[in-house]
Order: sequence, then structure tokens, then C-alpha cells
Amino acid sequence: MGGDDAPSVVIEGALRAARSAAEPLSIQLFGPEVELLAALGNRATSAVEIVDAPQVIGMAESPVAAVRAKPRSSIHHGLQANLAGRADAFLSAGNTGAIVAAAQFILGRLPGVVRPSIPSYYPTVKGVCLVLDVGSNMDSKPEHLLQFAQMGSAYARFLLDLKEPAVGLLSVGEEPGKGNELVKGAYDLFRAAPNIRFVGNMEGRDIMHHGADVVVCDGFVGNVVLKLGESVMTAVPELIRQEMVAKGLDMKYMDAFRQVFGGLKRRFNPEYYGGGSPLLGVDGTVFILHGSSQARAVERCILMAARAATTQLKAAISSALKKAA
Amino acid sequence: MGGDDAPSVVIEGALRAARSAAEPLSIQLFGPEVELLAALGNRATSAVEIVDAPQVIGMAESPVAAVRAKPRSSIHHGLQANLAGRADAFLSAGNTGAIVAAAQFILGRLPGVVRPSIPSYYPTVKGVCLVLDVGSNMDSKPEHLLQFAQMGSAYARFLLDLKEPAVGLLSVGEEPGKGNELVKGAYDLFRAAPNIRFVGNMEGRDIMHHGADVVVCDGFVGNVVLKLGESVMTAVPELIRQEMVAKGLDMKYMDAFRQVFGGLKRRFNPEYYGGGSPLLGVDGTVFILHGSSQARAVERCILMAARAATTQLKAAISSALKKAA
Repeated sequence: MGGDDAPSVVIEGALRAARSAAEPLSIQLFGPEVELLAALGNRATSAVEIVDAPQVIGMAESPVAAVRAKPRSSIHHGLQANLAGRADAFLSAGNTGAIVAAAQFILGRLPGVVRPSIPSYYPTVKGVCLVLDVGSNMDSKPEHLLQFAQMGSAYARFLLDLKEPAVGLLSVGEEPGKGNELVKGAYDLFRAAPNIRFVGNMEGRDIMHHGADVVVCDGFVGNVVLKLGESVMTAVPELIRQEMVAKGLDMKYMDAFRQVFGGLKRRFNPEYYGGGSPLLGVDGTVFILHGSSQARAVERCILMAARAATTQLKAAISSALKKAA
Repeated sequence: MGGDDAPSVVIEGALRAARSAAEPLSIQLFGPEVELLAALGNRATSAVEIVDAPQVIGMAESPVAAVRAKPRSSIHHGLQANLAGRADAFLSAGNTGAIVAAAQFILGRLPGVVRPSIPSYYPTVKGVCLVLDVGSNMDSKPEHLLQFAQMGSAYARFLLDLKEPAVGLLSVGEEPGKGNELVKGAYDLFRAAPNIRFVGNMEGRDIMHHGADVVVCDGFVGNVVLKLGESVMTAVPELIRQEMVAKGLDMKYMDAFRQVFGGLKRRFNPEYYGGGSPLLGVDGTVFILHGSSQARAVERCILMAARAATTQLKAAISSALKKAA
């Protein structure tokens, strides 16, 4: 029931995934049974099963309150299925806060994890890098940044197929002594960590120039960096237009610019990298989709979640965290 | 003696400023007398006076150590002239750290100012906004952010000729409760401050869309934001090239892009907005130029510093700080 166009988009994505999966997939759709049956119509297939979850958590509801008040929501039942092993992975395009809260409540956190983190994708001149945390953790401590580095490395191995992802610590200078107290403390932990390939401090300018595969920062800085990056793709075209007018350049170029920026803008969208982002640090396999996701994104995210389950992503993240302790 | 091409570029800029100034200017050049006389050659004019300062602080020297070890440097003598009233303003393209350290040592700070701040200019779809702090203050406290807001407002009135500059507090959401502990604390102080026009929290995406004339953040966040913005003008052209190749677009467009981005890149350069940036919060009138500044930037910065002195910028900043106490 999650997402702007639920349940139709979710059902369509599930049906596509069932068809396009290389290996047989069994997909369970959680939500009010009658509504889902009606939406599914005559497209019913043995690969897609409907599981009744009568309650729906709205996109605008207060996460914690909704999670308490609606124990029979599709989010609860889906996560419980992942917990019980009836589902190898759970994904939703619903209320992100509610998913994060319910996942911690139902699945719990991996040992030592204080708060789960949702990594974000940042386009670079060499492809893409992961930035985490991007907002779920304000006022982090050095050991939290180390967990982001460890979980981010494990996810980069999975997503980007890298043996030893380069981990950078976002700061104001490359020298070890540079940065605020948080970063100085994290630097020493990163240096000592045996299970990450730490390439040192990096600066704001190094992100898009791919200074690292995994960029670690606290949630406040990461959120600012992510949103600033997204705005580049909307503000720069306007700056370009102004510059063209100032230079008296032929405006026909603007169409080419728009076309190109449309492509770049998509690269800031999680759909571009497999449909959604994982919720790292919970004791389960959970992926979160943008509420605006279309069927293609749902399809890709289902296939990604299935691959995460079969390749034991959760175990990899868990052991990445353990090695440090 | 400051800057990559000193003293020739500085002297050339001074001579240009003397010629282009609307009102008569008296410019003092501080440095080793013999060297400056030789560089000045037959261009000597009554408007430009040479003041001997035998010691030179190099661009790579450790600021605090150099300031202690070289009391007869051009930076010391120039700041002492500003202190004694022999000079209404001081500017340098030299070692920034040394200028900041020496200015606090010689001129002192305005009442209540913990650490001076150098604001940065950020291009927006509506022109430019000020971002401060951008690196001189790590681990700020809420009251420091308030000082940045007050000093930034005073400077925005001067630079952008705005009666009531809009002040935004950089956070992760527009709601008052959003942000880390620092920003939450600052929000309440900003709301209560009588002498700033606080427009509320803003997000990373609002900077280039001109959500405010003055964007306030701690030095760590501001430094990341500034450097990320600068890299946009180098990374995005490469991303555009890749996108054009992927789309099979005619590469002749790339020349137009390059031309346009050259113009945008300049807008991230302080020279674009008057040559240099002020050192806000010291009890004097001090402007700092990039070490790479050319004669044109030196000329503009001299004229700007003169205007700052005649329009009592220092007094405006001082009273902006007082009103809050």
C-alpha cells in the first residue's frame, strides 16, 4: 500500500519482477485483501500471493505513533514475514519514517548498531559513490561514523561489485588533523579499523570527482550535501540560461542542455541504481523505495532485494560490524 | 608582498586603484623598501607611498609561528597602521592564516566575538548569497552562529545594498524542530534576535535557489558546501560530456558548454564580487584576497576596502553585534 500510486504501481512492478527474474521468485503483496484482489484483477499468477494486512499507514502520518497504533499494517506484517523467514526480504515505497521505526521494533538492530542508516547515491565523474549517513542520524559520535563506513563498504561490495571499496571521511582538509572534533575522532578509528580501505579525509570538492567509493559523514552534513547536489541539476540550468543570455549565445543550445540535464537529474534518483536503498543496520533485509517510484523502479528493487537475500548481504554487513569489535 | 605574483601584481593593482578611484586615494604599500622601489620603477606617484616592512611571511609558513617570529612583516606593519589610524583599511593577498592570527593579535576582536569569520560568496539563480562561516570556526556554539548571522547581515547590507537581508539557517528541514543540537539551539536565538530578518531553516537545495541572502552554518558544514559548489563547475562539465556521448549528441555543443561554464566558474571566485572578502569580527577594516589574485582583483578590492572605511562598515558590524547583547 506504500507510495503515491499504490497499490497499482506496486502490483504492476511485482508482476514484472516475477516475469523478468532469472530464477523463480515468490512475491507476497501485503495490504487489504479485497482491495489488492480488485487491483490485481485477472492478472493473478502463482508467483504473486496476496497476504491480508487490513491497516494502512499513510505517507503523512507520524511514524512512531502510526507504528504503535497500527500493528496490522502492511509494513508490520511484511516485516514480521521477514523476521519469521516467510520472506527473505521486505521492501516498501511507504512512509520511510514508519518503515525505519517498525523495522527496528520488529527486526531489531544488528549487534552494536545504534541507529540504522539509509545510504544515498551520488553521481561522480567515474559513475557513482555512496554517501552515508544522509539524515537519519544527527549529532553522531565517531564510533557511529565507523559503523557507517563498515556498513557502507559492505553495501558497496554488493552494489558496485568492488572487492575493497575506498572509504573517505568527509572533512575540510586532507590532513589528518583537519576537521571538527567528530571527524578527528573518527579519523583515528578509521585508521585502526582492519576491515575498511580508508583513503583518508576528503573535501567537499572530492565527492563528485570520486575521491572515494564510500563517503562517510554525519547525517546533518550528508543531508545538506545530498540536497545541494540535487539542486545543482535544477539551479545550474537556470544559471546556464542566464550566462547564455549574458554572452548572447544562441538559445537553441538550451534545448540540448535541458536534454542533458534531464539525464543527469535521473542519476540523483535511487531508481537509477536499482530502484531503492537498503536500510543498513537492521537485523533483516529491508529496501526502501521513493514514494514516487513507478512500476519499473518497484520491479528493479524487488530483483535487487532478492539478490541481496541470496548473496547474504545482511550477513556481510553483520560480519563487517563484528570484525571491528 | 602577499600573493603568488607579489609584489608586481599588488603594485599594478594599487596604481590602477589610484587612477580609477572616484575620490582621491592614498595607498601605502608595505614591504622591503628596496624591493618595492625597484618593482615600482618609474611609475612612482604621490598617491602611492612605500612603507618599509623588512620581513616577509611566506604563503606556506605556519601562521601562528610566523606571526610570532616576524613582528616586522608587511602584515604586521599594515595592520598596525590600521590600528593607529594611519590607514583606514588593510588588505592582503598573503597567508590567510597569518592575516587572521595577526589581525586578532594586533587589532583585537569586536566585543563578544569569539572568532572572526570570512564570508564566502555563493552564486544563486537570483545572483549571489553570502555563506558563513566557511571554515575558520569548527565546532561552533549557537551564539556563534548568531554572530555570523548578525555580521553577515551587516556585510550583506554593504555589499548587496539590501536594507533587510534575509537570513537562513542551514538545516535538514524547514520545520523549527529539524536539525542537530547546534541548529536547534541557534534557531531559538535567531527567532529572538531583533536585528536580523530570519526567514527560518533552509535546506541544502535552497542555497543555489536563493532561499536567503545570508546562509548561516558552522565552519565545517560551510566549508564542505563551498568546496562542493566549486567542484560542480568542474565535475558537471565532465558529467555533461559523458551524457552527450551516451545520448549521441553532437559534440560541437561541448564548446558552448565550456564557454558557459567558464563564466559560471568565475562566479564562485571572490574577485567576481569586488576582489576579496572581509575578515568579519576584528576591530578594524581588513580584506583578504586570494593568493592567485591579479591586478584587476587587487584594484577592485582596494576600492571596496576604501568604500567599507568611508561607509563605516566596521561600526555597522559592531552595532549589529551589540543590539543582540
